[in-house]
Amino acid sequence: MQFHITPPDETLRPELQNKIDNLAKPRGSLGRLEEIALRVGLIQQSLSPTLRAPENILFAADHGIVAEGITPTPKEVTWQQTLHFACGSGGTGIGFLCRQHDFRLTVVDAGVDYDFPAGCGVVDRKIRRGTSNYLTGPAMTLDELEKCLTAGAGVVDDAAARGCNVVSFGEMGAGNTSSSALWMHYFAGVPLEKCIGAGSGLDDAGMRHKLDVLSRACKNYEFELNGPGSAWNLDGGPREVMARFGGFEMAMAVGGMLRAAERKMVILVDGFIMTACMLAASRLHPNVLHYAIFAHEGDERGHRLLLRELKADPILSLGLRLGEGSGAVCAYPIVDSAVRMINDMESFASASVTKYF
Amino acid sequence: MQFHITPPDETLRPELQNKIDNLAKPRGSLGRLEEIALRVGLIQQSLSPTLRAPENILFAADHGIVAEGITPTPKEVTWQQTLHFACGSGGTGIGFLCRQHDFRLTVVDAGVDYDFPAGCGVVDRKIRRGTSNYLTGPAMTLDELEKCLTAGAGVVDDAAARGCNVVSFGEMGAGNTSSSALWMHYFAGVPLEKCIGAGSGLDDAGMRHKLDVLSRACKNYEFELNGPGSAWNLDGGPREVMARFGGFEMAMAVGGMLRAAERKMVILVDGFIMTACMLAASRLHPNVLHYAIFAHEGDERGHRLLLRELKADPILSLGLRLGEGSGAVCAYPIVDSAVRMINDMESFASASVTKYF
Repeated sequence: MQFHITPPDETLRPELQNKIDNLAKPRGSLGRLEEIALRVGLIQQSLSPTLRAPENILFAADHGIVAEGITPTPKEVTWQQTLHFACGSGGTGIGFLCRQHDFRLTVVDAGVDYDFPAGCGVVDRKIRRGTSNYLTGPAMTLDELEKCLTAGAGVVDDAAARGCNVVSFGEMGAGNTSSSALWMHYFAGVPLEKCIGAGSGLDDAGMRHKLDVLSRACKNYEFELNGPGSAWNLDGGPREVMARFGGFEMAMAVGGMLRAAERKMVILVDGFIMTACMLAASRLHPNVLHYAIFAHEGDERGHRLLLRELKADPILSLGLRLGEGSGAVCAYPIVDSAVRMINDMESFASASVTKYF
Repeated sequence: MQFHITPPDETLRPELQNKIDNLAKPRGSLGRLEEIALRVGLIQQSLSPTLRAPENILFAADHGIVAEGITPTPKEVTWQQTLHFACGSGGTGIGFLCRQHDFRLTVVDAGVDYDFPAGCGVVDRKIRRGTSNYLTGPAMTLDELEKCLTAGAGVVDDAAARGCNVVSFGEMGAGNTSSSALWMHYFAGVPLEKCIGAGSGLDDAGMRHKLDVLSRACKNYEFELNGPGSAWNLDGGPREVMARFGGFEMAMAVGGMLRAAERKMVILVDGFIMTACMLAASRLHPNVLHYAIFAHEGDERGHRLLLRELKADPILSLGLRLGEGSGAVCAYPIVDSAVRMINDMESFASASVTKYF
């Protein structure tokens, strides 16, 4: 899957900054709203940017590694919640937030270990019924990874066809903070123990066990890579790491992010897992970061470190650790405020107010 | 002006917490939304709290101290912006935010040095055309302070009559970060130099001058208090400090906050100036703090220190320093999310999802 992602043309920056500086307020006094307005203006190449048909695309999948007991979340929660997101009356966490902020919620089965009934509202992009256990081998094949990137891109194409130009991604998948920790470890070069957190609610013993399992998974991979790896064509590259430790839902989110950037959409980045996906996406195509607005610093240990690696300063810090895209959708009204600012505020001249500092 | 402010009855807390803990999500995973839902539920004594007819009440006034050159904002900006708030097409900072979040914007002339034309939409509660210069004497009399508290309470009564149960306060008044710094100095016992910031845009020399002027204002007051003060019935109490250094708009906001708490309304606290007002209000009636939700940590130096004094952890930190209530209104969707969470999310039982952690 090829993506052609170019950075926004910077030519418009002085004109955008000048428009913002002449709004009837002390220069810089709307803080991050001014910074976000500039970002969105550059992305859209417009002095009057707009946000249209926002959509939260939620990818769900199961993870073979849960057989090792690395999460307290029962595996059936993945399919139960996925079904609940898709056909519930909005009574989920992401459901009420999407309704509040007029987001379309698109729920995609990337690889849940369950057969969803036809017509239940779940978009079927199932690769298979959960990844393989990556303790001793790859979670997915490179071919499956490509299928994920393509499927994620296609779902974003569908959103764009609905008029969407601002998108957030969410996930559901018991065990996916483990995959995220491993991606972070390899892509950001952070020691594994600093990448691991409590997930949806591990205690200290559970955290130690999770670290032990993931350390062994790393050792096994590195043994293969440094030992017989060359014979097996192992290269330690980003696609290989993604396939080795990833989740189908995460790989699809990466594909979605890359396509959204290619289409010059605004990408709202949710919590730890989606930040790990953005990190992975940036290892494939660094320019994707120009389109990313980091929405929320979550409660998962390692997220702060990961954000620092990406030089990101998220809009919100509400201690959320729900996933589903909840942090991204919560931050949307702030991005909306920024866009309204540049469109709706009068200039000093039109408002007949003496320019002040 | 008497206020009878009681803390919320805590009896409902276990039942509220139990409802929140049984929503279909890992316990605590909605972070601050859960905390805010609990606060609002206790304030309203309801397991299904609601937010109705939100209103931002913006008090405007001029300050005699500006004669000493403590702000780069030209004094006429106070009346120009006040008029612009009231009769503009929403093209102000607070205007577009109020429209975005369906806030009523009520603009009150507490003491602007300008005669607003009849019918312009500014609510007339003018005490007089700006405070006296507090460098050498009180900014206002104790009688004027009482009038401010009464007027502020009355404006909140009007909002309540419109169905409002959640209110934010904003201000416009060139020079009012100086009054706020002085209230903070006396009420929080923080050294003056740590209470002083750049306001709407002072440079270093301007900051030194501001500190010099305000230090002299303190010395003059303390000389009177410790010298001939007893003969003049000076007592150094909170009302006296408020009247000595206050602004009419700030004193009215204090009255508004106290009445809002008395009426068990949710109070969204904006930036540095409104936080200083909440501090002053709490020195008159400590129970007012039970009704305060701190919305925003602003960019003004001293604000962080002041928030720490009040043990407050604001919802947002967007680097705003506009005032007008902008930070409070920006934070409203988060409070709204909290209330929607407790009302709209299904429980594990009703959602048929296995309880997870």
